[in-house]
Amino acid sequence: MVIDDNFLLNSETARRLYREHAAKLPIIDYHCHLDPKMIAEDHRFESITELWLGGDHYKWRALRSNGVPERFITGDASDREKFMKWAETVPYTFRNPLYHWTHLELKTAFGIELPLNPETAAEIYDRCNEMLRNDPDMTARGLMRKYGVEVVCTTDDPVDSLEYHKAIRESGFEIKVLPTWRPDKAMAIETGEAFVAYIRKLEEVSGVKIDSVGSLIAALDKRHDFFEENGCRLSDHGISEFYADDYTEAEIEQIFGKALAGECLHEADVRKFKSKMMYEFGRMDASSGWTQQFHYGTIRNANTKMLREIGPDTGFDSIGEFNTAQSCARFLDRLNLEGALAKTILYNLNPSANEVMATMLGNFQDGSVPGKIQLGSGWWFNDQMEGIRRQLDALSLLGLLSRFVGMLTDSRSFLSYPRHDYFRRILCDLIGSDIEKGLIPYQGYEAARVDAMIEDICYFNAKNYFNF
Amino acid sequence: MVIDDNFLLNSETARRLYREHAAKLPIIDYHCHLDPKMIAEDHRFESITELWLGGDHYKWRALRSNGVPERFITGDASDREKFMKWAETVPYTFRNPLYHWTHLELKTAFGIELPLNPETAAEIYDRCNEMLRNDPDMTARGLMRKYGVEVVCTTDDPVDSLEYHKAIRESGFEIKVLPTWRPDKAMAIETGEAFVAYIRKLEEVSGVKIDSVGSLIAALDKRHDFFEENGCRLSDHGISEFYADDYTEAEIEQIFGKALAGECLHEADVRKFKSKMMYEFGRMDASSGWTQQFHYGTIRNANTKMLREIGPDTGFDSIGEFNTAQSCARFLDRLNLEGALAKTILYNLNPSANEVMATMLGNFQDGSVPGKIQLGSGWWFNDQMEGIRRQLDALSLLGLLSRFVGMLTDSRSFLSYPRHDYFRRILCDLIGSDIEKGLIPYQGYEAARVDAMIEDICYFNAKNYFNF
Amino acid sequence: MVIDDNFLLNSETARRLYREHAAKLPIIDYHCHLDPKMIAEDHRFESITELWLGGDHYKWRALRSNGVPERFITGDASDREKFMKWAETVPYTFRNPLYHWTHLELKTAFGIELPLNPETAAEIYDRCNEMLRNDPDMTARGLMRKYGVEVVCTTDDPVDSLEYHKAIRESGFEIKVLPTWRPDKAMAIETGEAFVAYIRKLEEVSGVKIDSVGSLIAALDKRHDFFEENGCRLSDHGISEFYADDYTEAEIEQIFGKALAGECLHEADVRKFKSKMMYEFGRMDASSGWTQQFHYGTIRNANTKMLREIGPDTGFDSIGEFNTAQSCARFLDRLNLEGALAKTILYNLNPSANEVMATMLGNFQDGSVPGKIQLGSGWWFNDQMEGIRRQLDALSLLGLLSRFVGMLTDSRSFLSYPRHDYFRRILCDLIGSDIEKGLIPYQGYEAARVDAMIEDICYFNAKNYFNF
Repeated sequence: MVIDDNFLLNSETARRLYREHAAKLPIIDYHCHLDPKMIAEDHRFESITELWLGGDHYKWRALRSNGVPERFITGDASDREKFMKWAETVPYTFRNPLYHWTHLELKTAFGIELPLNPETAAEIYDRCNEMLRNDPDMTARGLMRKYGVEVVCTTDDPVDSLEYHKAIRESGFEIKVLPTWRPDKAMAIETGEAFVAYIRKLEEVSGVKIDSVGSLIAALDKRHDFFEENGCRLSDHGISEFYADDYTEAEIEQIFGKALAGECLHEADVRKFKSKMMYEFGRMDASSGWTQQFHYGTIRNANTKMLREIGPDTGFDSIGEFNTAQSCARFLDRLNLEGALAKTILYNLNPSANEVMATMLGNFQDGSVPGKIQLGSGWWFNDQMEGIRRQLDALSLLGLLSRFVGMLTDSRSFLSYPRHDYFRRILCDLIGSDIEKGLIPYQGYEAARVDAMIEDICYFNAKNYFNF
Repeated sequence: MVIDDNFLLNSETARRLYREHAAKLPIIDYHCHLDPKMIAEDHRFESITELWLGGDHYKWRALRSNGVPERFITGDASDREKFMKWAETVPYTFRNPLYHWTHLELKTAFGIELPLNPETAAEIYDRCNEMLRNDPDMTARGLMRKYGVEVVCTTDDPVDSLEYHKAIRESGFEIKVLPTWRPDKAMAIETGEAFVAYIRKLEEVSGVKIDSVGSLIAALDKRHDFFEENGCRLSDHGISEFYADDYTEAEIEQIFGKALAGECLHEADVRKFKSKMMYEFGRMDASSGWTQQFHYGTIRNANTKMLREIGPDTGFDSIGEFNTAQSCARFLDRLNLEGALAKTILYNLNPSANEVMATMLGNFQDGSVPGKIQLGSGWWFNDQMEGIRRQLDALSLLGLLSRFVGMLTDSRSFLSYPRHDYFRRILCDLIGSDIEKGLIPYQGYEAARVDAMIEDICYFNAKNYFNF
Repeated sequence: MVIDDNFLLNSETARRLYREHAAKLPIIDYHCHLDPKMIAEDHRFESITELWLGGDHYKWRALRSNGVPERFITGDASDREKFMKWAETVPYTFRNPLYHWTHLELKTAFGIELPLNPETAAEIYDRCNEMLRNDPDMTARGLMRKYGVEVVCTTDDPVDSLEYHKAIRESGFEIKVLPTWRPDKAMAIETGEAFVAYIRKLEEVSGVKIDSVGSLIAALDKRHDFFEENGCRLSDHGISEFYADDYTEAEIEQIFGKALAGECLHEADVRKFKSKMMYEFGRMDASSGWTQQFHYGTIRNANTKMLREIGPDTGFDSIGEFNTAQSCARFLDRLNLEGALAKTILYNLNPSANEVMATMLGNFQDGSVPGKIQLGSGWWFNDQMEGIRRQLDALSLLGLLSRFVGMLTDSRSFLSYPRHDYFRRILCDLIGSDIEKGLIPYQGYEAARVDAMIEDICYFNAKNYFNF
């Protein structure tokens, strides 16, 4: 058995905390990339290959690193061939989170406790596919139910019709599936024609003629209201760095005009426009009582050859190096000064910035909401044992762990929910270890507080913070 | 009991090293922010609220993070109300150093071993206040004696009269209270009117008419001598980054002239002026045989709203991101080339720069003094278990731990001395663990050297290095 | 005994993995700075002082940090005096890798298990010198044989005649001693006269008249072929940061012309020229099937005074701070887009960039060779317990540890081979600990894979990857 009951739980106290306070709580997955259409249609998967290897760029990277040709990854090899290549690669992933995720998913979704390797591959392939084809609970919705999901927030563009979110709601599905406002394209002024096309699309769906910055904001405000009506309570922003340059409204108007006219923009203009838009997005979220999320610090699409061949989000991104703390502070300060600083979650991709961001929070906590400014859970490449521990340590030592809203999957897969379990085990292990070392007292009032802290981080903090 | 005798000491060897070699040594607190007036007047505290919450921005940040309104932090709530809010917050600080510091201070100063929480708050509040009011030893001086303090270095401006330092000396107080030269304002040319006002003040206290860079330096030299006469042996500099730009004397004269005339300065001019002044400060320290300290890497006063409402140093600072290693090297090189490199302590705020700075030391060690260039103890946000361990590890692996001058409080509070104890425990724990793993031999000559190393880091290195 | 059999091996599983799978494998030292002349002539050392202190700037730094005057380090003190100063310093190096390396070397080369300190110094000095003088196996070649070395790659300039490499080959020495192509000087256009002199030298040895960029490249191509004929399979580049600026061929021609004419160059021109040359070097390596290595992130020769007095590589270098991830990505992308991306090893000096570089790999893995893009083993200051562990962790969590080509000495000393043993112990300790915690299954197929992974990282991966 690869994953036993005590997986990641290295002390008796850790095991007890996990069993009694963490294991059974529902899941609030407040940030993911599930496709709402698949939930609306209660998608049934063709095969474990579709489910596992259809879009998971983590696995694709591992395959390429292991010397597997692209044909078996995103190419025209058969489902069976692709699965076999993955099964060959898995035993080369020792110490990588993929090893544990793979077996957590096999165990919790399929009840399979065999290690995946070339010897077991055929049996596992057949058993999984058999279940996917025949088990009535092995559908998109069935999997969400199996894992005890209570709320899911997808990631959506302001121009999205949210038709599938409506369909899900109207279907009476008991799990809340809410949209998240991700307006990256509305500030991607550097993309030229694509930006203009986006503005035209926004014009169309909003019914607002966009010929000025004012009308652009008006159109977005209208869509923001529409998202709010559809249950949205979070925004999300994928950025390399923070933008808080100085600008005048006249400048922004001019820059926007140039962009609409198809003119080329200087980098300084691009930064000014982004600074303006980020401010406006922040203002919208504050006025709606939403939570704004910033995922920053990426180098995206680093491999031009593969971008041209198979497109974005295919495993060619990495951790960037940006000195953006001062811009971040300026950005948040600007909103705060106007009374327009919404609840905020900051996710840094470079773990070396954990301490920078964990102390940034304190600059803008204002006593209005416990943990108003949050350090996001270990994101993307940091969503693994050490990354999670380092995030928890930085937050603990430099802020208040007790007020942390906890884990999310950030995933495109219906099988990623065990990552919540993975996180909860790591959390209980850390706290259990501290208790056993005498670093946290565990008697009377304090014991009750420790127990509650575990439950809060796993579930109740998110429930209270987001107001779904 | 929250803090027992073995707190932080995870092995038998660690416990023995601590008991026999660390616990009983006096404290040399070579960098703090105590108010010398309070020592001169042997201040008695109104209440535990004044002592704990009157100026401690670490606690203020925790309170704000926990959702406590500002009224109960820096506002007009009563002492009792403020204390109760703190007591409610303490159990939310598990894993934060405040949890341990709070209970270390309760135990060592007040003999209270109860955990602070809403149930114990009233009793603890009353007991502490009773002692503060009535116990003859619970004054500023009494607390310093209780903790075995031998030397304290405060932080003072060149224009300061040092009257309280003189009064303390003349009072026959057996603990040395020495000033530290902190001339930040003398290079803060970017502050415009405040800078000019400062120059006028300096003119007045030095008796030197300041109408040129030469006379500015002469005035500062005179004050440097005055500090020297008053027992000063260290300088300190609070900077975001290091400044070592190229400049000519004529340029500096022109820049200084502009500043005196109230003209606006370009950033490049500001950097040149700071480069010049940092060089001059270094030269002064070298010629006096002092130690220069650099605390770098901060983002200060990030929250403009709160800066306007309650002023600086109120908990709205964070760790910055600066690529300043090359400037640091250039700055030290410039002094070294002129034979004017004083003993130096470098404190980085971003722990990700630990290795950068730990290797910087080696560039300028010259064999004249053991550990001439020092990596400062985990500073500010890093003054906690992990921060201290990371600093000790970086220094150990990249330099000579044996020559480390050790801990300081950097505190405004008379209750912060247990942080020396906290540090000593962590040090003994690390060394004890290494011995038990067979990484450090512990027999004969080597055992004696280990014991001496502990004592050196806790006390003797600082004693020998600073020459108080 | 300082180093016992279980040194660094903290669990039974770790000890077994080490004994059965790591300890006995030969050493492939694919990057070092040994002097091929000493191997060709089978150099015999005058004394342990020559061997240990003649050129080891790690030890020199420790001596200076410990307050030892330069006379006893690089000055005119006698060999005996210098050794005694080192013996005094060693007990001050607890927790520094020098402490372990010193005793590993004493034990494995000389069979001495005494701790080195002032009491044992005389005996150790005499015993070592006696062996160096009289033991037939204590020569350059004898030491390489003793440590089970199979291949060594030195570091050589394109203008080098490689005469000693030929002499070694022709002598029938059974250990492969291969050159490595290190063309740093060929792109050091910022060095003015030195660059021009270098170009003239290159002209002479290549027989190609160099009066244009085209002829410069042709000359280098010819030397690249010459290195290839002499068994070279790797290049190496020592850079502060990566260069991937935009340029036109005409610009490069103009910049090169200016340099040859002795004109001063703008920094932007220097960067363009380096960008061009790095691209060309990459192209050459790809077309030869070599592996290119990048050692980046240094601040070199930070101490101008000592550079003038005793020259470069004397212990006055440190870890730099550079935001170079984007340039690195651009550089690799440019080559990849042209189908000219060779096998590549990236070595970062700042350990805070471990995660940045570990994820950079994935951007360019293409399935052609397992682990085509590698994260180099903990380099220079990181070649110690924590540095090695952090590199292994970053690579494990963000890439495929299984495909790692493992350790190298990067050393100028014939006594540094125990660092391979040091590395292997740390590796086995990590894996052993994971197995004991249940993080890696160890039965049947998986147990065999774990065993093979250890052997692969210690030996077989390098063997297969480099094709010597």
